[in-house]
Amino acid sequence: MIRDKITVIETNIDDLLPLGYENLIDKLFEKGALDVYITPVQMKKSRPAALLTVLCKNSFKDKLASVIFEETPTFGVRFYQVTRCKLARRTETVRTKYGPVRVKLGSTGSKIKTVSPEYEDCKKLARDFKVPLRRVYEQAKYQFQSRIEGGRSSKKNARK
Amino acid sequence: MIRDKITVIETNIDDLLPLGYENLIDKLFEKGALDVYITPVQMKKSRPAALLTVLCKNSFKDKLASVIFEETPTFGVRFYQVTRCKLARRTETVRTKYGPVRVKLGSTGSKIKTVSPEYEDCKKLARDFKVPLRRVYEQAKYQFQSRIEGGRSSKKNARK
Amino acid sequence: MIRDKITVIETNIDDLLPLGYENLIDKLFEKGALDVYITPVQMKKSRPAALLTVLCKNSFKDKLASVIFEETPTFGVRFYQVTRCKLARRTETVRTKYGPVRVKLGSTGSKIKTVSPEYEDCKKLARDFKVPLRRVYEQAKYQFQSRIEGGRSSKKNARK
Amino acid sequence: MIRDKITVIETNIDDLLPLGYENLIDKLFEKGALDVYITPVQMKKSRPAALLTVLCKNSFKDKLASVIFEETPTFGVRFYQVTRCKLARRTETVRTKYGPVRVKLGSTGSKIKTVSPEYEDCKKLARDFKVPLRRVYEQAKYQFQSRIEGGRSSKKNARK
Amino acid sequence: MIRDKITVIETNIDDLLPLGYENLIDKLFEKGALDVYITPVQMKKSRPAALLTVLCKNSFKDKLASVIFEETPTFGVRFYQVTRCKLARRTETVRTKYGPVRVKLGSTGSKIKTVSPEYEDCKKLARDFKVPLRRVYEQAKYQFQSRIEGGRSSKKNARK
Amino acid sequence: MIRDKITVIETNIDDLLPLGYENLIDKLFEKGALDVYITPVQMKKSRPAALLTVLCKNSFKDKLASVIFEETPTFGVRFYQVTRCKLARRTETVRTKYGPVRVKLGSTGSKIKTVSPEYEDCKKLARDFKVPLRRVYEQAKYQFQSRIEGGRSSKKNARK
Repeated sequence: MIRDKITVIETNIDDLLPLGYENLIDKLFEKGALDVYITPVQMKKSRPAALLTVLCKNSFKDKLASVIFEETPTFGVRFYQVTRCKLARRTETVRTKYGPVRVKLGSTGSKIKTVSPEYEDCKKLARDFKVPLRRVYEQAKYQFQSRIEGGRSSKKNARK
Repeated sequence: MIRDKITVIETNIDDLLPLGYENLIDKLFEKGALDVYITPVQMKKSRPAALLTVLCKNSFKDKLASVIFEETPTFGVRFYQVTRCKLARRTETVRTKYGPVRVKLGSTGSKIKTVSPEYEDCKKLARDFKVPLRRVYEQAKYQFQSRIEGGRSSKKNARK
Repeated sequence: MIRDKITVIETNIDDLLPLGYENLIDKLFEKGALDVYITPVQMKKSRPAALLTVLCKNSFKDKLASVIFEETPTFGVRFYQVTRCKLARRTETVRTKYGPVRVKLGSTGSKIKTVSPEYEDCKKLARDFKVPLRRVYEQAKYQFQSRIEGGRSSKKNARK
Repeated sequence: MIRDKITVIETNIDDLLPLGYENLIDKLFEKGALDVYITPVQMKKSRPAALLTVLCKNSFKDKLASVIFEETPTFGVRFYQVTRCKLARRTETVRTKYGPVRVKLGSTGSKIKTVSPEYEDCKKLARDFKVPLRRVYEQAKYQFQSRIEGGRSSKKNARK
Repeated sequence: MIRDKITVIETNIDDLLPLGYENLIDKLFEKGALDVYITPVQMKKSRPAALLTVLCKNSFKDKLASVIFEETPTFGVRFYQVTRCKLARRTETVRTKYGPVRVKLGSTGSKIKTVSPEYEDCKKLARDFKVPLRRVYEQAKYQFQSRIEGGRSSKKNARK
Repeated sequence: MIRDKITVIETNIDDLLPLGYENLIDKLFEKGALDVYITPVQMKKSRPAALLTVLCKNSFKDKLASVIFEETPTFGVRFYQVTRCKLARRTETVRTKYGPVRVKLGSTGSKIKTVSPEYEDCKKLARDFKVPLRRVYEQAKYQFQSRIEGGRSSKKNARK
């Protein structure tokens, strides 16, 4: 497990048209946000508004706050620090019938906890082969699983 | 049970500032809406938007659509009819230690299904006496319940 | 594709404590609801409320409305009919290393569209073997996929 | 006002990974959806799920249902018809200091109800000039407003 | 008022099927979570996702993070500390016509602030007697209120 | 940019009727809250509940927690501190055809970042003149913009 400190930036927005969010989110990622998400909230005077949350490395917080002040009419943002605890990550590539797909692996020690086919790879192949995205995604998971199961059974066979 | 037909008006709004909703909702009620509510939805291009729903008698639907076209920049609204099934309603008044509170009663046949202290009465008394709203509300429910329980026990006694 | 007509029952609830929903939902399923779900909505006077939606066969609608009138203080519900379009369903069983898991298959004509391991089977095995639910679920998907891929390759081999 | 009938397609999805929605939504628009939106809902067994809603012309409903059956593991979708009531639309172009922006105008009779700068035009100019999106958007609204105000005052002057 | 420090664990989940949450939540409570809740959020690339929040004593945070890493494919979680401020709690039992119901009382000093019938007791009696849950719940509140009102009037009488 | 520290108060509420929120929110603002908002969340046992968030100056936190304990049956609230980063604010008045409207301006250094017509002023004028709120709001923005554009063009002319 890897631990570090990151900053959470939050601001409640009740004066931006919904159509302004795509551009705001894109710019926040371009300027280094680790993640960006929106929570629907209910503010004073019956306002169906949005809570914008940005996760970032501490050193990026002023630059990202500037993006928010440029792209929204908000008068203020809030910061606080949190401790992040992450799996070690590495990437492998599996061969599906549609082509290669990268798979992100998350592990603690030698134990793989998470097997996550790269979304953009799956999307591209699904587009190219005109097949449903989930078919490529599941193929990638299946191929990775096969490799592990195969590894297990050959070890078992070896032991005989 | 009472049955009738009402109209549901819906429109997805992604081009109104959240601060415009209070006024919109107020006007819809003034012009005869039976109910108005807002559902947070996610629209295309990452837009955190609002689905506005208005319930009304069929004959009010054009007038209420006009309010929406005046107060929001929407280009279109949708209508459909639904069957409404309601309890018979009547109002009684109970005496709480803070003063009288109207109580709405909903019933099918002679059976009371619902006992609902009038919110505005409770709010006013809570303000006047500087007590929590829920204390007045619960007092009203308690007093109504007492009346029924009292009624039951006197009937029981009478039967002896 | 199979088509039929079903009824949608809706009611906006702003006078039930959140803790009352579990019981309400359980009873609706017991009395024959096809599905039940809750949408968070914002009602008049700043009320964070819930829209309850029940899907049912047309002949169940009065019985289910009665459950709502018993378990909530609502004064009214709304009905409308919709056309449902469904995949043909059948169930098969796959063998995972934890035990058998039923898999629901949805198909149009001879084409399988959907492979869905039975949640309750996976949950039970995950509990019994103290393994993560997703491991059982993914095993079941993997085993079903293996069977298909195996079938394909044996057909291919047969053709040689 | 223009009235027509359109179809609403709905399906509750509790078995698609959130990362599958972008592709699903894109395909629905490519295949002719008028609009697509997602409502967060709470389904049975504590499932935070999504209600997918697609608006379309009646003749597109089977093709769009097919996209849903391809891209999600859902077992069924629901259809119902609604009446749509729309403003007449036309497009004009205004000149901003960043370049031309199309403006959609919605009107009833000769009365303009809605002035909506084209989002994609504003986004492109904002990117090209490295200015906030809202500055371009507001410029476009301002320019259109100026033209109207100008028109009014010249008419007023003419009358003198 | 009692004050202590607790830990908030948060993680945004866009790669777990909605059907995996029940099991996740159950395990978190089994392993010592004080509370668990889910907030619907909108993440990048149009993903309708979930923010999972777990409240726990500081010493439980690693064990609970492990549950999240086992049961979901998440790559990271976030921690931060908050100060909790609570009412003193005690439990009493009231007698309803359906049987005894425990009532949680929250107080500051000698003042009772909160009277909360135990949900599981009410649910069980409602099931056993086949009556609506809210009838049992309200009976329990009524009985507790009666005791207090009775106490007040006997004190008043005593003073005479 | 102005920086200070404020307190966030949070509590999850699953035992308050939705109709109690208006009064709760009003009281929190009366007692000094900087902002109050509600997030729909899903709690244990299928409860569609609300997360109440209050922002306040640190010295107000106990008084505001008391309001929550009075007006809701909650057993506990949580506090944490955040850093706030705000624009410098000042107010100017613009003349619209309906009358004067105050406009809040947010700036960093000499650069105006945000121009926000005062909602209550716009609402009042919209009511008085029976025109849509957004017409007054947009007029106020337009007038402010005109003043700036006018300023710019007279400077430009001066330079010639």
